[in-house]
Amino acid sequence: MAGNDSKPSALSAMGRRTKEPPISWLMGLKLERPELISLAAGFTDNPTLPVAGSRRLLNELLGDAALGQAALQYGSTAGDDTLRKLTARRIRQLDGNPRGQAASYEARRTVITHGSQQFLYMATEALCDPDDIVLVEDPTYFVYLGIMQSRGVAGRGVRMNRDGIDLGHLEQVLESLRRSDDLKRVKMLYLVSYYQNPTGRSTSRQVKTGALELLRRYERAAGHPIYLMEDAAYRELGFAATPAPSALANRGAADRVIYSGTYSKPFATGVRVGFGVLPEALLAPVLRIKGNHDFGTGHLAQQLVVRALESGLYEKNLAKVQRRYRAKAKAMTDAMRAHFPEAVRWEQPEGGLNVWAALPRKVNTGMKSRFFRKVLDRKVLYVPGGLCYTDDPTRPKPGHEMRLSFGAATETDIQKGIRRLGQVI
Amino acid sequence: MAGNDSKPSALSAMGRRTKEPPISWLMGLKLERPELISLAAGFTDNPTLPVAGSRRLLNELLGDAALGQAALQYGSTAGDDTLRKLTARRIRQLDGNPRGQAASYEARRTVITHGSQQFLYMATEALCDPDDIVLVEDPTYFVYLGIMQSRGVAGRGVRMNRDGIDLGHLEQVLESLRRSDDLKRVKMLYLVSYYQNPTGRSTSRQVKTGALELLRRYERAAGHPIYLMEDAAYRELGFAATPAPSALANRGAADRVIYSGTYSKPFATGVRVGFGVLPEALLAPVLRIKGNHDFGTGHLAQQLVVRALESGLYEKNLAKVQRRYRAKAKAMTDAMRAHFPEAVRWEQPEGGLNVWAALPRKVNTGMKSRFFRKVLDRKVLYVPGGLCYTDDPTRPKPGHEMRLSFGAATETDIQKGIRRLGQVI
Repeated sequence: MAGNDSKPSALSAMGRRTKEPPISWLMGLKLERPELISLAAGFTDNPTLPVAGSRRLLNELLGDAALGQAALQYGSTAGDDTLRKLTARRIRQLDGNPRGQAASYEARRTVITHGSQQFLYMATEALCDPDDIVLVEDPTYFVYLGIMQSRGVAGRGVRMNRDGIDLGHLEQVLESLRRSDDLKRVKMLYLVSYYQNPTGRSTSRQVKTGALELLRRYERAAGHPIYLMEDAAYRELGFAATPAPSALANRGAADRVIYSGTYSKPFATGVRVGFGVLPEALLAPVLRIKGNHDFGTGHLAQQLVVRALESGLYEKNLAKVQRRYRAKAKAMTDAMRAHFPEAVRWEQPEGGLNVWAALPRKVNTGMKSRFFRKVLDRKVLYVPGGLCYTDDPTRPKPGHEMRLSFGAATETDIQKGIRRLGQVI
Repeated sequence: MAGNDSKPSALSAMGRRTKEPPISWLMGLKLERPELISLAAGFTDNPTLPVAGSRRLLNELLGDAALGQAALQYGSTAGDDTLRKLTARRIRQLDGNPRGQAASYEARRTVITHGSQQFLYMATEALCDPDDIVLVEDPTYFVYLGIMQSRGVAGRGVRMNRDGIDLGHLEQVLESLRRSDDLKRVKMLYLVSYYQNPTGRSTSRQVKTGALELLRRYERAAGHPIYLMEDAAYRELGFAATPAPSALANRGAADRVIYSGTYSKPFATGVRVGFGVLPEALLAPVLRIKGNHDFGTGHLAQQLVVRALESGLYEKNLAKVQRRYRAKAKAMTDAMRAHFPEAVRWEQPEGGLNVWAALPRKVNTGMKSRFFRKVLDRKVLYVPGGLCYTDDPTRPKPGHEMRLSFGAATETDIQKGIRRLGQVI
C-alpha cells in the first residue's frame, strides 16, 4: 500500500500528501454494515429522484435520430451552449434580475462541469499553489477541505454568526495576515452561502457585500485580486424564507466572484452536472485545465438537464424535493426536541440537508472518540464536527459538534437514529 | 484576459502555465466555419452511435423504480462494482485469459472514470511533480502532452518503429538520463499501444515485454518504480489483425502497469465512461484524488454501460463501429493513393481513427505555416504533426507531418478533403 514507507515510492508530493477523504470511510462503513442508520452520508432522498420524468425525456431525446446522435457524441469543453445560457439566466432570475448587473450573468463565463465538485477543484487548481491560503468558514464543507489538503493549500477559519461569517473577524484575520506578510498567499474566501453545509445557515446580503468590500480593501497589500468563491450547492433546497441574492448581484462582482452551483442536488445526483461562473481573468485558465481533465462534461447528462429545465420537469420536481426535505428536517428536529437533553444546542434549518448540533464542550465527538463508538454500537453514523474545521494554527479545533443529515435516511430511520443518539448523549 | 500581464494576477503556477489545448482552437475553427471539412477533430462517427439501443436500455432501467433511483443517485468513488467486475473481466478476455496472471485483472484495482482522459490526468497527478519526466512515443497523443504541459512535467521522446517504440532508443534515452543523474525524475513511460493516435501503429507483445524489462532494469538507479502507462483507448477499434495482449499479460505486470481504457470511443463518446487498472501502490492515492475531483463518475452513465455490456448491445454495436471505420479508413487511403504524390509517405491503418502522413521534410505543416493556411483556404482542417511531439530538448521537432482523422467526417467529405489536400501538396 501507499502508506508502506519501507518500499521506495514514485508518488508525487500530491500523491503522498492526499489523505483519505473521511466521507469515504463513513460511506465504506455503511456499505459494510447496511443495518447502520446513516445520518452521515451526503446522499439525497431516493423517492424524490425524477425517475419517470427522466425516462420520458430520454425517450424523447433518443427517439429523434439527430438529437440522439448529438447527445451521444462529444460536446465542447465549456459545455452545451443552451445549458450555459439557461444556467446563466437561472442564476440571474434567482438573484431577482438585478438592474445594471448584466455583466455578472454572462453565459460565456458559465462553465458546465462534472458536478460542482469538479468546478471547485479546477478553480482551486487555477488559483492556488501549495502553501497558498484560502479563507473558509469555521466550520465549512469538509469535502472542499479535502481539495485544499490534497493541494497543500493552507486554511484560515473565519467565525460564523447566524447570517454568515463574522465580518469583524474576517477583518481581524486579514489584518493579521497583512502584518505577518502572508496576504500575498491569500487567493480567496470560500463561502457556502445557502443553508450551509454543515451548519444550515445562510449568508445575508449585507455579509456578502461587506466581505467583498473587505477583500477589495486588502488587495493592494496582497498584490493581486482576492476572490470570493461562493458555493451555492444548496441554494435551491430551501423550504422556508426566500434566500438572499448571490454575491454576483453586487456591483463590480463580475470580476471578483467565482460562483459555483449544481443540478445534482436539486435534480438528480446520479446525473452529475454542475456549473460555475468565472471572472474573465480565470475563464481561459479554467477552460484550459478542463480541456486537460476531460475536454467536456458528459453530453448525454447535459442534454437530459437541458430538457428537464425546458420542459418544466426540473421545477416540478424541485417543488417536491423541497416539500420532502422540509418534512424530513421537521422529523429530525422534532425528534431532537423530544430526545436530546437541553444542553445540546442546534438551530432549525430553513433548507439544505443538515442539522448542526453542539454538545457540551467536554464531549468529544471525533471519529476515534468513545462517544462515536458508543453511537456506532447503537448502529448510528454521524459526521464528527471536527472534520468540518480547517487546520488553522491560530485556534484550537472544536471537537464537540456533529453534522446530522436528513438527506438520505427515511423519516422512520431519522426518528430512530435521533432517539438512539439521544440515549447515548 | 489571463494573458494580460499588465494586471496583477492571482493565478497559480499551473493556472499561468497551462496553455490552450490546440484541439480547442481547431474545434473552435470548425464551429465558426461549419463549411470546413474537418479531418482534425477526434469526434467519432455519428451514424454508429447506439441511439435506439441506448433508448431501449434507459427505458428498461428507468422503468424500474428501484433500479432507476439507484441510477439517479450518487455511486461510489471507485465506480459501480458490477461495471468494475465486467471491465476487469473484459480486459482479461481481450488479453486471451493468460494463465497465472489473475493478479493483473483484479476488479478492486479497476477504477471507473469520467472518460479515460480523467484517468490519465489523475494517474499523472499521483505520480508527477513539476519537472519530473514522462517518456513518450515520438509522436504521441497530443492531449496527453497537454496534461504534461499543464503540470510542468517534462517529456523525452522515444523513436517508433512499425511495431511500437524502438527498444534500442529507449535504452539509449534511459542510459543518458542515468548518466545525467535525471533518472530519479522519470516516473513512467506512456504508450498508446493500439492503433496509436496519431500514427495508427500498434505495439507488439515483444516490445511491451522488452520495455517493461528495460524500465525494471533502471529502477535501481531511479530509486523508485518506473511505471508503464498503457493507453488502450483505441484497442477495440481494430478492423484487421488481432492485436497483441496488453502489457498486463506480462509476468509481474500487476505492480508496474497502469492500464487505461474507455467505453467512450467504442460505444458512445457522449456517455463519457472510461476506466483504469492501477498497481496496488497507486490505487489508494488515485482513489483519494478521485474523491476530491468528483467522488465518483456519473452513475446514470455507468448504469447505461453496464446494461450495454450485459445485454449484448455493446458487442453488436462494436461490430458495426469496426465495419464502418474500416470502410472510412479505406475511403481515406484510396483517396490518398489517387490524389497524393508519391513523395507523401503513409501507412494503411489496421484500426483506430487516424492516418499519419509524412510530406517531404522541407514542407512545414505547422498551425502558422503557409501550407496550413493554403489547406484552410480550401476549407480543410488537419492536425499538424508537430503538435504530437513532446518538447524534448535532445532532438528537433519534426514539422512535416499531418494527422488525418477519418472518425467524424462522412466518406464523401473524406474523399473531397483528401482531394483538396492533394491539390495543395
